[in-house]
Amino acid sequence: MNQNAGQNLINRRWVLASYPEGMPTHDNWRLESVPVPELQPGQILVKLRYLSVDPYMRGRIHPGKNYAEGVSPGELMTGGGVGEVIASAHPDWKVGDVAESMFMGWQEYAVVQPGGSGPRAVNKVDPSIAPIEASLSWLGMPGMTAYFGLFDLGKPRPGDVVVVSAASGAVGQIVGQLAKLAGCRVIAIASSEEKLNWCREIGFDEGINYRTESDLVGAVARACPNGVDIFFDNTAGPIHDAVVQNLALHARVIMCGRVSLADRFGQPDIGPRFMGQLIVNRASMHGLLVFDYWHRRNEALKRLAQMGKEGKIRFREDVARGIEAMPDAFLRLLRSENFGKQLVALD
Amino acid sequence: MNQNAGQNLINRRWVLASYPEGMPTHDNWRLESVPVPELQPGQILVKLRYLSVDPYMRGRIHPGKNYAEGVSPGELMTGGGVGEVIASAHPDWKVGDVAESMFMGWQEYAVVQPGGSGPRAVNKVDPSIAPIEASLSWLGMPGMTAYFGLFDLGKPRPGDVVVVSAASGAVGQIVGQLAKLAGCRVIAIASSEEKLNWCREIGFDEGINYRTESDLVGAVARACPNGVDIFFDNTAGPIHDAVVQNLALHARVIMCGRVSLADRFGQPDIGPRFMGQLIVNRASMHGLLVFDYWHRRNEALKRLAQMGKEGKIRFREDVARGIEAMPDAFLRLLRSENFGKQLVALD
Repeated sequence: MNQNAGQNLINRRWVLASYPEGMPTHDNWRLESVPVPELQPGQILVKLRYLSVDPYMRGRIHPGKNYAEGVSPGELMTGGGVGEVIASAHPDWKVGDVAESMFMGWQEYAVVQPGGSGPRAVNKVDPSIAPIEASLSWLGMPGMTAYFGLFDLGKPRPGDVVVVSAASGAVGQIVGQLAKLAGCRVIAIASSEEKLNWCREIGFDEGINYRTESDLVGAVARACPNGVDIFFDNTAGPIHDAVVQNLALHARVIMCGRVSLADRFGQPDIGPRFMGQLIVNRASMHGLLVFDYWHRRNEALKRLAQMGKEGKIRFREDVARGIEAMPDAFLRLLRSENFGKQLVALD
Repeated sequence: MNQNAGQNLINRRWVLASYPEGMPTHDNWRLESVPVPELQPGQILVKLRYLSVDPYMRGRIHPGKNYAEGVSPGELMTGGGVGEVIASAHPDWKVGDVAESMFMGWQEYAVVQPGGSGPRAVNKVDPSIAPIEASLSWLGMPGMTAYFGLFDLGKPRPGDVVVVSAASGAVGQIVGQLAKLAGCRVIAIASSEEKLNWCREIGFDEGINYRTESDLVGAVARACPNGVDIFFDNTAGPIHDAVVQNLALHARVIMCGRVSLADRFGQPDIGPRFMGQLIVNRASMHGLLVFDYWHRRNEALKRLAQMGKEGKIRFREDVARGIEAMPDAFLRLLRSENFGKQLVALD
């Protein structure tokens, strides 16, 4: 046992300073330095190596109702991370083990209590399968989101036309590659030619640049002349509106994220509604939250690991460095300035 | 064979004069008198006794894409009807049989060709089961709509809270009673106290008057403190918006109709969108069209007939008289001025 290894360490951590109004700014967080506390029985001390930056974090810093408890001003900012155990007061964990959790927080050191099996669980990562940071992306929550959203809600069949928004993002990249493996034709929507080129490189059939395309409805229609069978939507907003006007009969729309509304969080999202499209096409829209599938975590991760081993999954990351970088990395993500899964590496 | 019984008859029929812009008016149709044509082999001549008036007809007199072929100006207005066979050139039909079809048209006499099993089929009606006009409502298309929408898309469980808009309408009445039989708590939304009283009489637990209620979101919240599990929506518009802000976890929204938009058909429906509600509650929205279930017609009608026989289904009709009444009956329906299933009786 190395219960006291952390005693002389100083932990730098980001605390929520205030709820953002509209688009968050750097000032909504502040960096604190605090001593690492002594371990209590059952706890482990993790020196974090990578922190995850995800769009869902926008929902956690808003006072309104959401699917998970939010962060209040003064509290540690929430987020996933992975790192090495440097002290353990838990019988099943030893120094050198690699620990991952969705609730490590924006900090350099985390004291966590392994146990349970839900989204709050601390998971042991096998570094022989993939680089440990994969546990924050295609071998973790975003990979599971893609896997369960596409297969359980989208129910793809060979020949289905699948449109993915934020296609070069953490979830989008995996959705596209899984849909290709399922025999679908897959169209990427992203914010630059560079991103679309990457999407094509990993197997997407076509790409639409929503920043330069003046007629998004027409662009989707041209790319999908027989309509869209599955729309995996990570953005909401005008991209959503354009795709929904091109649905095929019995289309499935998977509402995964709404990053395009990050600057209007908590405010009404006013725009055209498409009830007629849903009825005429007998389409369905499904809100997706990966937590509902957490009991099937091993199923998804085992299959994704196998696909990775066989070279069937490629994955691009955008890695910033140092704990100082966290708010900016998050703000870049909200502005679609990242290219691939946004991570912050610590050292 | 009485092939020529119709030869000296004059048929009065409503022809579409022009596509409506916004809310239809009486002038969008004109009444014509034409001779009944001679029967061709395989055809029957039906003297219509009841014509059906349904919200879907708004979609048929619009030039845009819809799920069924529309009516062009100059053509007979489409619609369901039931009546007696007065001449037959079909081996399986004899004079005195009762024939029902969704495609009889707004007219006094219909020459139709039985055959096939889809929505265009002509169905023989057994007058010993229920009054023949039931084949246009709870023992016909609206009953099937309620049955398949509620059970196949809504998937009710005992204890589910079910909200029904246009609750005293042809579909709404049946949805409410079926949901009660399935052990649900059922809330009606309608446009008058009189309608809500009828809903309570046939088993709805509570009612909300959307015309007099100034805070519809709050009213739904008070009636459904644990949220809405199933929303069977016949209206779209502000009623839809209010209910969707009260969804329970894993709620199912069934988009059946959008009669509240009858005056804006083909124009954008601008208003708040609720992607966040769908994601936070992992809810789903499903466009419903009864035609998708037509191959299971006998299943639904057999069960509905049995429920009717056992006194478990009560049903209110609003009957206007004479072919002249058709446009006004339809316009009353679009303005929610009818009370119960709108029919026109002919004689």
